[in-house]
Amino acid sequence: MDIVVVGGGACGLKAACRARRRNEEANITVVDASSYPSLGRCGLPYYVEGLVHTVDDLRKTLAGVVRDERYFKKVKNIELLSNTRATEIDRNRRVVKILKPDGSEDELNYDYLVLATGSKPVRLDVPNSDAEGVVTFSNPEDAERIVEMWENNELERAVIIGGGLIGMEMAEALTNLDVKVTVIEIMDYILPALLDLEMAKLVEIYLKEKNVDVMTKSTVTEILTSGGRVRGVKVNGIKEVPCDLVLMAVGVRPNVDLAVKCGLDVGKFGIRVDEHLRTSDERIFAGGDCVENRFLLTGDPIFTPMGSVANKHGRVIGDNVTGGNSKFPGVLGTTIFKVFDMNVARTGLTERRARELGYDVVTCLVSGPDRAHYYPNQKPIRVKLVAERGSGRILGAQIVGLGVVDKRIDVVVSAMHMKASVYDLSNFDLAYAPPYAQAVDTLIHSANTVINKMEGLIETISSFELKEKLDRGEDLVVLDIRSEEELKKFKRIEDERVLHIPQSELRERYDEIPKDKEVVIVCQIGARSYEAYRFLKSKGFKCKVLEGGLAFWFW
Amino acid sequence: MDIVVVGGGACGLKAACRARRRNEEANITVVDASSYPSLGRCGLPYYVEGLVHTVDDLRKTLAGVVRDERYFKKVKNIELLSNTRATEIDRNRRVVKILKPDGSEDELNYDYLVLATGSKPVRLDVPNSDAEGVVTFSNPEDAERIVEMWENNELERAVIIGGGLIGMEMAEALTNLDVKVTVIEIMDYILPALLDLEMAKLVEIYLKEKNVDVMTKSTVTEILTSGGRVRGVKVNGIKEVPCDLVLMAVGVRPNVDLAVKCGLDVGKFGIRVDEHLRTSDERIFAGGDCVENRFLLTGDPIFTPMGSVANKHGRVIGDNVTGGNSKFPGVLGTTIFKVFDMNVARTGLTERRARELGYDVVTCLVSGPDRAHYYPNQKPIRVKLVAERGSGRILGAQIVGLGVVDKRIDVVVSAMHMKASVYDLSNFDLAYAPPYAQAVDTLIHSANTVINKMEGLIETISSFELKEKLDRGEDLVVLDIRSEEELKKFKRIEDERVLHIPQSELRERYDEIPKDKEVVIVCQIGARSYEAYRFLKSKGFKCKVLEGGLAFWFW
Repeated sequence: MDIVVVGGGACGLKAACRARRRNEEANITVVDASSYPSLGRCGLPYYVEGLVHTVDDLRKTLAGVVRDERYFKKVKNIELLSNTRATEIDRNRRVVKILKPDGSEDELNYDYLVLATGSKPVRLDVPNSDAEGVVTFSNPEDAERIVEMWENNELERAVIIGGGLIGMEMAEALTNLDVKVTVIEIMDYILPALLDLEMAKLVEIYLKEKNVDVMTKSTVTEILTSGGRVRGVKVNGIKEVPCDLVLMAVGVRPNVDLAVKCGLDVGKFGIRVDEHLRTSDERIFAGGDCVENRFLLTGDPIFTPMGSVANKHGRVIGDNVTGGNSKFPGVLGTTIFKVFDMNVARTGLTERRARELGYDVVTCLVSGPDRAHYYPNQKPIRVKLVAERGSGRILGAQIVGLGVVDKRIDVVVSAMHMKASVYDLSNFDLAYAPPYAQAVDTLIHSANTVINKMEGLIETISSFELKEKLDRGEDLVVLDIRSEEELKKFKRIEDERVLHIPQSELRERYDEIPKDKEVVIVCQIGARSYEAYRFLKSKGFKCKVLEGGLAFWFW
Repeated sequence: MDIVVVGGGACGLKAACRARRRNEEANITVVDASSYPSLGRCGLPYYVEGLVHTVDDLRKTLAGVVRDERYFKKVKNIELLSNTRATEIDRNRRVVKILKPDGSEDELNYDYLVLATGSKPVRLDVPNSDAEGVVTFSNPEDAERIVEMWENNELERAVIIGGGLIGMEMAEALTNLDVKVTVIEIMDYILPALLDLEMAKLVEIYLKEKNVDVMTKSTVTEILTSGGRVRGVKVNGIKEVPCDLVLMAVGVRPNVDLAVKCGLDVGKFGIRVDEHLRTSDERIFAGGDCVENRFLLTGDPIFTPMGSVANKHGRVIGDNVTGGNSKFPGVLGTTIFKVFDMNVARTGLTERRARELGYDVVTCLVSGPDRAHYYPNQKPIRVKLVAERGSGRILGAQIVGLGVVDKRIDVVVSAMHMKASVYDLSNFDLAYAPPYAQAVDTLIHSANTVINKMEGLIETISSFELKEKLDRGEDLVVLDIRSEEELKKFKRIEDERVLHIPQSELRERYDEIPKDKEVVIVCQIGARSYEAYRFLKSKGFKCKVLEGGLAFWFW
C-alpha cells in the first residue's frame, strides 16, 4: 500500500508515523516544500528571544535527535522528501506530481493521500510591503532574518502589525532584546478575535507597563522606506512611526491551492473534511491548518491553525489510512499565550460572539489568587466565564493574569467538551492544597458567581457602563466599601459622587446612603460588594455591583 | 428564623455566610470549641516551615482582615461563639446545649442546625504516647509547639509516623528547618491510600534524595522517653530511631460524637447525609470532615477530609437551610501535595483499588516534559492513567513530578466528573503554547497510550515483573534501544541478558536478536520502545515493552 503525505509539519508527519506504527508494510512518503520539515514553528518566537538556541532545537525528539530525512528513514522507514514541492494531484490516476530539488519532475502513486499543506501568512497589500525589513513570521528564515538584524545592530525599533497571538509573543521577544516595539491593531482593542474588550484591556495596560506602545483603531497605510529598506510606517494616512522592522502578524490562511486545483471541496476556512478527516475524495484525507474545523458548540466551520489540533488530526488520519475508524469531534478554539509574565488564555465563545450568535448569556468577572492567598508567590488571575442563561451551560472562558491560567482554562475546556454547566463545574473535585489553589478555586468561584446571577442574587454593572453614566452626569452614588488603607494604596474613582463607607461599618452607617438614588457598590475585586449588595438590597436600596471591582476600572 | 452551626471551620462558616447572603433576616449563630475559628488548617505545615509568618495569616480575608468574632459580627451579622462547646442536641425541642468559656451553660434554639464538627487526628496507642514531644498535627497548638522546640534548639531529629499527605508536607517543612526526618510507614510503601506502588516509589526515592529517611513495613512499637520527654522510637520492637519529636500523622477520623449522642444515622465514614447534605433529621444538615461522602464512580461512601470539599458542602448547606434546593453530587478523592519541589496528585481509583473492585482495567505509565521540551525550565512529569477496558472510561489518575501536575490532574477530574472516556480525553482541545504544554500534552499522550493498549497495538511488562523474571533467571532478552550517550549518562539494567541496539540501527540489525526468546524492549520513558515493538512484532518477535521505561526501574 502506498501512502503519500503532502506537508512535513505536525499533522503530516504525525499521520505518517502513526500509519507506520499501525502498518509496517505500507510505503509511506512525505513530501515537504521546505528544507526544515518537522519544525516546531510555535517555538520560533522563543528562538528570536534567545530562549531556544538554534532552529534545529525545534526539530529534535525528546531524546535530542534532529528529526531529519535520515532519522525518518532509519527509525521509521518513512521516505521524507524535503525541498520537494507537490505540484498537482491526479485523482483519477491517484498520482501526486512532484518537483524535486534538482528541478526534475516525478510522480508518486498513492492508495491514500494526506493533505497537510498548512497555512500561509497573510501579507498586507500596502505600498512598499516588499521592502527590506518587512517580514511575516511563519518560517525560520523570518526568524533568522530578525536575529541577524539584531546581531548586526540594525534593529532598534520594530512595528508589529496585528495585535493577535503572534503579535503578543513577538512583542515580548523583541522587547526582551531591547527593541522598542509598537503594536498596531486595526480594531478597537487588541486580541479582538480572542477576548472581550475588558479582558483585552488588561493585556493592553500590561503591555504599556512593559514599554510596548499599542495603537488601536489604527491601520498601516504605507511602509516608509529609505534605499529600499524600511524606515517606518505611516498610520491612518497621517502619523509616522519610525522603525527598522515591520512584522506583519495579521493572521494566516489555509494553504488550499493543491486541493482547489484538483477539485476537492473547499470551504471558507479550508479544505472540507468529515469527522474522519476525509475530504470529498474518499482516497484523500486532510488535516492541520489547511482544513476547516468544526466548532463544537455550534457545529459551524472554524479556522483553528494550532499545532495541538494538527497533531490530533495526524493521529486520526494515521488511523484511518490504515484501516482504522477514528473520528475527530471538533475544537473549542482554545488559545493560550504568554506575554512577558502575563498568561492569557481563552476557549469557546466570547460574550460578544455569543450574543451575536443569539445566545442569552450570563457572564462574570472574578479575580482571585492562583493559590492560597497566604502561600508565597501567589499571583492574581482574572476569570471571565460565559454561560447560557437557564441551562447554565458553559459557552466560553477567558482567563488573564500573572498567576496560573492554563490550568483553569484546561478545566473549562474539559468541561465544555463534555457539555458541562456551571452547576457541574461548581462541584468539580479539583485538586486543592495551598501551593496550588485556594480551597474554593477562583474558577469554582466563577461558576458560583454565574449561578448567583442566574438566581438573581446579584445585579452588576460593567465598568464601561458606569463610566458612561458618570460621564453623562447621572445622579447616582458610587459606594466604595474598601478600607481607608486600601483607598490610599489602590486606584479609586475620582468623582464627587463617590461615598466611602468601609464594609465593616456599613451595617451601622447605611442610613448615610441616599435611598432615592441608584447605588453602585465598588470594592477591589467585587466579592465584598456582593455581600454589601445583599445587605443593602434587603434594606430597600436600588443598588448594583461594579462587575469585577476596580480591577476592571481602566480610567 | 434561627440557624445554628456547630463548628467554625471551612464548612460551618461557609454555610453561615452563604445563608446570610441568601437571608438577611435569619439569626445565625456559629459555635466553635476552639479559640481560632476560621483557620485555614491546610496552611499549618507552611507556618512551621516559615513560609507563612503567623497563625493569624491563616485566618485572614483576601483583603487582609482577620476573620474573628468581631469581623463576623460587623460584616456578616453572624454571631460567632468561640471557645464554646456544643455539648448536646435535643432534637425534640430543637435546642443545642452549649458550654460557654466562663463555664456556664446555655441553650440555643434552632429551626435548622448545621453540624460541621470536622475531624480529629488518630492517636496511636503505643507506650508513652503522651510524652512531651509527641504531637498529632491538627491544630495551631501542635504547630506552635514544633516551632517553639525549633526556636529553642530542642529539635534536631523528628520521626513522622505515617507516610501520607501530612507526613509528606511535614517532611518538607521540617527538613527545610534542618531537622533530620525519618518517615515510618506501616504498609509496604508510602502513600498506600493514594498511589500505586510504582508511583509511590518515585516519591520515596525523591524523599531519600532530599535526605529524608523512609522506613516502610515498619511499626512504632514504643515511644522512648527520658524524663518524660521523647528521645526516640522503637520500630518493629527492635530498632531504635532517636528523635526529639514524634509527629503522629496516621490520619483523622470524623468527629461524630454529637451526632451519635443525639441519635442521627452515622456510617463507617461519618454522619450519613443525602445529596442535599441533610442528615436523618430533616432539620439537621451536616458537612465537611464529619460526614460520609459519596464516591462518584461507585456510589460508595468514602471519607474525604478536604478543605475544598468542606467549602463546597458549606455552600450547598447554606442554600438548603434558606429555602434552596442545592445538591452535592459526590467526590473523586482528589488529593494533591507538594513535597520539596515534587508535585504529587491523584484522583479516582488506583489500579490496585480498581482491580479489588472488580474492574477490568487498562493502565499506562507515561512520562514527558510539562511544556515544550525545547522551552526553558521544562520539567518531567509521570502520569499513570487507569481506565476501564472496552468503554475506556477513565477511573483514575496519578501524576507525579517536578513539573506541573495540578493542571493535568484537574483535567482528569473534570473529565471524570462528566464520565469521560480516554477517547474523549484524547481529543480535548487543551491549551497549547510552548511555555505551557507540548503540542501533544503528556496527558493526551497518556489517553492515546491507553487506547493503543486497548487496540492491542502494544503489550507491556511492569518493571516489577521484569525484575522478578530476571531474578528468577529466566532466559529472556532485554533489548535496550537507547543511544550510546544515554547508556553512559543514565541508569541501565546491569545484566548479561541485556542486548544493546540503538533505535537508529534496529531496522538493520534486528537479526542479532534471538528469535526464540522473549524480548523486553527498554528505553528511557517507553515511547521509543513502543515504536520498536511495532517493528519487531511485525518481524515475528515475541516482545513486550517495559512499561514507563527505565524511569520506573528502581534497582
